[in-house]
Amino acid sequence: MRISKFMTPEIIFGSGSINQAGDSLRRLGAEKVFVVSDPGVVQAGWVERIIGYLEACGLQYHLWTDVTPNPKDDEIDRGVKEYVNSECNAVLGIGGGSPIDAAKAVAMLSTNAGNIRHYEGVDQISCPLPPMVMVSTTAGSGSEVSQFSIVTDTKRRLKMTIISKSLIPDIAIIDPDTLVTKDARLTANTGMDALTHAIESYISLAATPLTERLSLYAIQLIATYLRPSTASRSNREAKEAMAMASLQAGIAFSNAVLGAVHAMSHQLGGLLDTPHGEANAILLPYVMEYNYIAAPEKYGHIADAFGEHVADLSPSEAAKRAVKAVKELARDLDIPESLAKLGLKEEHIRKLSQNAVQDACMITNPRDMNVEDVEKIFRQAL
Amino acid sequence: MRISKFMTPEIIFGSGSINQAGDSLRRLGAEKVFVVSDPGVVQAGWVERIIGYLEACGLQYHLWTDVTPNPKDDEIDRGVKEYVNSECNAVLGIGGGSPIDAAKAVAMLSTNAGNIRHYEGVDQISCPLPPMVMVSTTAGSGSEVSQFSIVTDTKRRLKMTIISKSLIPDIAIIDPDTLVTKDARLTANTGMDALTHAIESYISLAATPLTERLSLYAIQLIATYLRPSTASRSNREAKEAMAMASLQAGIAFSNAVLGAVHAMSHQLGGLLDTPHGEANAILLPYVMEYNYIAAPEKYGHIADAFGEHVADLSPSEAAKRAVKAVKELARDLDIPESLAKLGLKEEHIRKLSQNAVQDACMITNPRDMNVEDVEKIFRQAL
Repeated sequence: MRISKFMTPEIIFGSGSINQAGDSLRRLGAEKVFVVSDPGVVQAGWVERIIGYLEACGLQYHLWTDVTPNPKDDEIDRGVKEYVNSECNAVLGIGGGSPIDAAKAVAMLSTNAGNIRHYEGVDQISCPLPPMVMVSTTAGSGSEVSQFSIVTDTKRRLKMTIISKSLIPDIAIIDPDTLVTKDARLTANTGMDALTHAIESYISLAATPLTERLSLYAIQLIATYLRPSTASRSNREAKEAMAMASLQAGIAFSNAVLGAVHAMSHQLGGLLDTPHGEANAILLPYVMEYNYIAAPEKYGHIADAFGEHVADLSPSEAAKRAVKAVKELARDLDIPESLAKLGLKEEHIRKLSQNAVQDACMITNPRDMNVEDVEKIFRQAL
Repeated sequence: MRISKFMTPEIIFGSGSINQAGDSLRRLGAEKVFVVSDPGVVQAGWVERIIGYLEACGLQYHLWTDVTPNPKDDEIDRGVKEYVNSECNAVLGIGGGSPIDAAKAVAMLSTNAGNIRHYEGVDQISCPLPPMVMVSTTAGSGSEVSQFSIVTDTKRRLKMTIISKSLIPDIAIIDPDTLVTKDARLTANTGMDALTHAIESYISLAATPLTERLSLYAIQLIATYLRPSTASRSNREAKEAMAMASLQAGIAFSNAVLGAVHAMSHQLGGLLDTPHGEANAILLPYVMEYNYIAAPEKYGHIADAFGEHVADLSPSEAAKRAVKAVKELARDLDIPESLAKLGLKEEHIRKLSQNAVQDACMITNPRDMNVEDVEKIFRQAL
């Protein structure tokens, strides 16, 4: 038996829980808070609201929203300068994966010297980070609970995967009420991102009994609630279920890591700035078909979590139902069917595949992959 | 919807994981470690072995093993003096619930002044504790991951329940190899304690989607593995499953709290120094019968986790199967059937019941209980 490790932040979950942001930061010793968000979240009104909670707790703050989707290394560098100049002593991220990953990267570079590229891969961070509170508003990335930060290297045009326990925030706040301002496209994409986290963590080589149940439960919630959540901004039951699904999938993948879908979509994001969830959603069924022989029994459990009737099927038939269920869900949500629609061209594939096999997420993919295997899947999905 | 909170220590689980004790303490800044254990664990050889790992990491230590089952307030007072005099700056607990609860209580009183009685109840601790690492060797108490410490008040002759996030250790190490030195009686009692944690947390008023799956999974593992684990010291598969069950039940009850079984068994422990797991095991089916109308559907899920065939049963029939399954398990493990065998007498019942309704665990019991209700159950189990 191998040794498994498991770690999560303190989690505060529920309708109205954003009002605990100020108190959470106070408990961690914050005096002046570096608030990281993006223009979309600001426009939705959540940043102003949360800043009100900080002020009510007597906290000072400095707001930094110069973050784009798939946050870039040069943005992070500017963020670190602003953090230092503004003399903050704590970090609050508000939003989806992009502002939260950016907030973590700024926190990391505020105490760890040098270029962010030095910290790529697993366990490269040595100095403790300032206190971090993250408020998730998308029910997708799981970054508010994970030991991951993904930052685009603009020179190499790829997304760097940085994994370290130091990147786990101190407190994660998940308030389903914040999901009602997302449009259908964002709801579908972030939901499919959460599904990818759940499935990849479940079949990961690093999955453990502490993560597998979380992954499966997340799949079950997403199978039931992602369609209605995409259909209506005001379906509170569906929003709450999707927030819980994303949270559980986030805890699972933070501890069990991911697989080839993420290793590949990180490259697409780096080169083409594609929406992360959408790229994952397109790649997921193809990678699942490839990975099937590594975990046929687990595929049967995935199909079962989707509500497929697998009791009377052979293991291989049951396993195929899992792929079918994922495809049907993506189709119902109008996810594009090909990477060409995201701008991928045949001439990109070789380089992307070479980079993908180097990504830290590839280590835990349950079936071995070489550059040619990755190329084949990129072509199937093209 | 209410707001739910969830917190665990960093967890290291697996065969051989005790060799990470030194490194874990080092990471937390320890220089001299106050090692808390009890004579039984010392005799089994685990303390010596783990001290070797501390020395290999260059750590100094001071060993304190003056802890009895159901640790007493005066023992804790002596422990705090030894902690201060030995100039330690971190705490390592090794053993079951008694030494780990004692270790937490010593850590707490080393930075929080006054009598331990001041901290009884929920959230009474204000000053941060020294770094704490806990090595669990019993697969029962869950104390290595919980925000609980239970200490006997020798004046009032009751067990005080102290609940605070501050009591969650920094790192919990769970090594199934340590279970092979437990005899059958201890294996059965601690396993039934874990089952009680799983069931009470599952039907607790404070249960959440983050805890319910853990509770159910723990029930399922215990239903499958507690018998074989009690039957043989060398059944590694069963030991590992019971360690995982206890861990998951521990995380669940730390976040969802417990119920009337614990509120009542704490009083028995305080008055009669009864083995905690045994008292729980006797009370559990009686309290389950009482609580049934609060959560019939959940009882059906408990029966299902026990492997009972409930699909074709009415909800009330399915629910009764849960109680029946618990009774059968206790009988198979030779758990005594009455509290009289533990020394309870009719004349104790009034006072014990008055104390039980004041216990912090009673707040989350799913069915209201007054003193007369508690008395009735004590009499049924007498």
